[in-house]
Amino acid sequence: LVKVAERLRNITYAIRDVYTIAKEVAKTKKVHYLNIGDPGLFPDSFSTPKYIREALAKATLEGNNLYADSLGVPELRRVICEAEKASKNICLNIDDILITQGVTEGIMFLMSGLAEPGREFLVPGPGYPAYSNYITFFGGSEVYYRLDEEDEWNPDVDSIRKQITEKTQAILVSSPNNPTGGMYSEKVMGEILDLAAEHKILVISDEIYDKITYDETCVSPASIRKDVPIVGMNGFSKAHMATGWRLGYMYFYDPDHKLKELKENIEKMARIRLCANTPAQYAAIESYTHPRDHTSRLVENLRTRRDYAYKRMQELPELSVTMPKGAFYMFPKIELGTTWKNDREFVIDLLKETGVCVTYGSGFGKYGDDHFRMTFLPSVNELEQAFDKIDIFLKSRRQNK
Amino acid sequence: LVKVAERLRNITYAIRDVYTIAKEVAKTKKVHYLNIGDPGLFPDSFSTPKYIREALAKATLEGNNLYADSLGVPELRRVICEAEKASKNICLNIDDILITQGVTEGIMFLMSGLAEPGREFLVPGPGYPAYSNYITFFGGSEVYYRLDEEDEWNPDVDSIRKQITEKTQAILVSSPNNPTGGMYSEKVMGEILDLAAEHKILVISDEIYDKITYDETCVSPASIRKDVPIVGMNGFSKAHMATGWRLGYMYFYDPDHKLKELKENIEKMARIRLCANTPAQYAAIESYTHPRDHTSRLVENLRTRRDYAYKRMQELPELSVTMPKGAFYMFPKIELGTTWKNDREFVIDLLKETGVCVTYGSGFGKYGDDHFRMTFLPSVNELEQAFDKIDIFLKSRRQNK
Repeated sequence: LVKVAERLRNITYAIRDVYTIAKEVAKTKKVHYLNIGDPGLFPDSFSTPKYIREALAKATLEGNNLYADSLGVPELRRVICEAEKASKNICLNIDDILITQGVTEGIMFLMSGLAEPGREFLVPGPGYPAYSNYITFFGGSEVYYRLDEEDEWNPDVDSIRKQITEKTQAILVSSPNNPTGGMYSEKVMGEILDLAAEHKILVISDEIYDKITYDETCVSPASIRKDVPIVGMNGFSKAHMATGWRLGYMYFYDPDHKLKELKENIEKMARIRLCANTPAQYAAIESYTHPRDHTSRLVENLRTRRDYAYKRMQELPELSVTMPKGAFYMFPKIELGTTWKNDREFVIDLLKETGVCVTYGSGFGKYGDDHFRMTFLPSVNELEQAFDKIDIFLKSRRQNK
Repeated sequence: LVKVAERLRNITYAIRDVYTIAKEVAKTKKVHYLNIGDPGLFPDSFSTPKYIREALAKATLEGNNLYADSLGVPELRRVICEAEKASKNICLNIDDILITQGVTEGIMFLMSGLAEPGREFLVPGPGYPAYSNYITFFGGSEVYYRLDEEDEWNPDVDSIRKQITEKTQAILVSSPNNPTGGMYSEKVMGEILDLAAEHKILVISDEIYDKITYDETCVSPASIRKDVPIVGMNGFSKAHMATGWRLGYMYFYDPDHKLKELKENIEKMARIRLCANTPAQYAAIESYTHPRDHTSRLVENLRTRRDYAYKRMQELPELSVTMPKGAFYMFPKIELGTTWKNDREFVIDLLKETGVCVTYGSGFGKYGDDHFRMTFLPSVNELEQAFDKIDIFLKSRRQNK
């Protein structure tokens, strides 16, 4: 009777099984959710700043509840331009900005406009699964370029260069990166832009974690090269701790007017779905005019957790990890030995035995094998409990050998 | 450099040009926006009820700002089941409900799971453009069945029967209908369901206007036949006058477990985009527990406007209209004569000359020719001004003949 289309059946959901097992485990023991990147899950440490909640309350009470401009509330797009100029020296005007229902909608819009059978997209491996999901969904092919653990998870530029073909439509960069916590150095980002310029390839830049960096500021491609078309994506979820608002934006940095047709076509998608959440858009305007000290408090809070988690990780001989430079993930390598067949088996074993829930690395595409992703969002106290359990778990597995 | 995918280029935006012209006209004269179905555009008559605005303010202030369940907040899904049972006697459980970012996302999810080259979907003509947009977008084909103006815009069941082939995947019903304001009678809905049962075809039911009816209640397919799988779609935008919240839902009425695979695949789409707006979901729960007298006030307000617009329409020999039974649109037929080439030309002529902005009927697919759609949302006072202008306009065109 009902035949499901190929494109949906093709979407795999590698990391879903961990969630199902966690629900089962939670019936008998405490589960430490180190698998989800939602700061607000830890309300003792991170909550949506009061002024942001008040801005949404004000927006709705004042009557901003109706359809907005499909491209986004103009005033919001204006303050975004100002912010991109001030923080990254990227020159944009209001027509270059499209407000989306989260970065995810931006990826979907973009891939709906670019992906077709026979077209290839260079994406980081390991990387955020939504990239390859939407590429596959729209019939394109993802080609993973390697992030190099030996080089602080910087992209291996050779791996990009070698895989560029006539089919390549775009190179997607993601810095700070989910799941590794690595950042693309200015040198490497420059080399990627050189390749894009040489081969006339679009650069797509996911910048959702750009405000969450620990040691150096994040390099945005449009900040360092002014002659390559770039579609950037960002949002309000992470830095504002309002992940449930589903509000993001795309910017079209288009020095040579190469993106006009793409943008006009993507605007059609935006118009069909009418608009992004209106009260949240008005609240977001407010957030730009407010001093953003909560982001620096967030980063300092996270730094303490990151340093603690890193220190504990050093004491575990089966795990080795590169210090994350941004976002709130670390991506340790597992010495599987003969104890576990692969990272998935390790993660499920750990979860069932200890209640510590992390995400297995092979769920993040190529080059994610033998790793897992954990967030360091929980308090040091909860991280301590989790690491104590990991410690006991690893010791017991050593003894059983 | 950047090649736009076929699927996006295929989306036409027939009614966009009117909007562009209206912006131009607005520089020199007052524009009467009778083209957009947004009750809140007329704040003197319709505003988002205070308790709904307060419910959203409360939701955000209390901290409901984080990722929600990708399928929707369970409590919201539970109260939706209760409401569907109470108002329409449709038996659903929480797992049958998926919360979406507006009905539009529901249509997109559904067509992403069903449409492929070679698959056909029966949709009403005239009908809401998003249906055919998403069908085309995903490579399927829309086949218009005729709504019969002579039968109060009821579907012509023969037109459905004759066009069912082996390629037909689903019949989409939309009652009350946008743009006609017509409703499917129980008899006709029953005949459509008989056809669906006979040919084992899915029924898709867009029920977004179900609370806005003037004379009789709206017939939902799942209320009258218990053995046909039906995917229903509804939302909070229209009845709650909060169009900008982007909150809707799909229900999977699945008596024989034929929709399990489809639903599981659509859930993957929901998970990739993480969730619908969280604070709006919590606010919507509140709206279900509150007495809904604002909807009956909305309907009574609209009835006055409908009756006024209908009366004025009778006085215009070039226009004939069927009294709308639901929603807030009427879809008059234009006697074009030799004055105008088609409905589009009529609408643009009217707009440029008088500032009265309506939408041309051929923008609503097949069987929309020689008509236009207007909303009767404005106050009687503004409708009076608009009809006075239409009256003068038509008289002048008569004299010029």
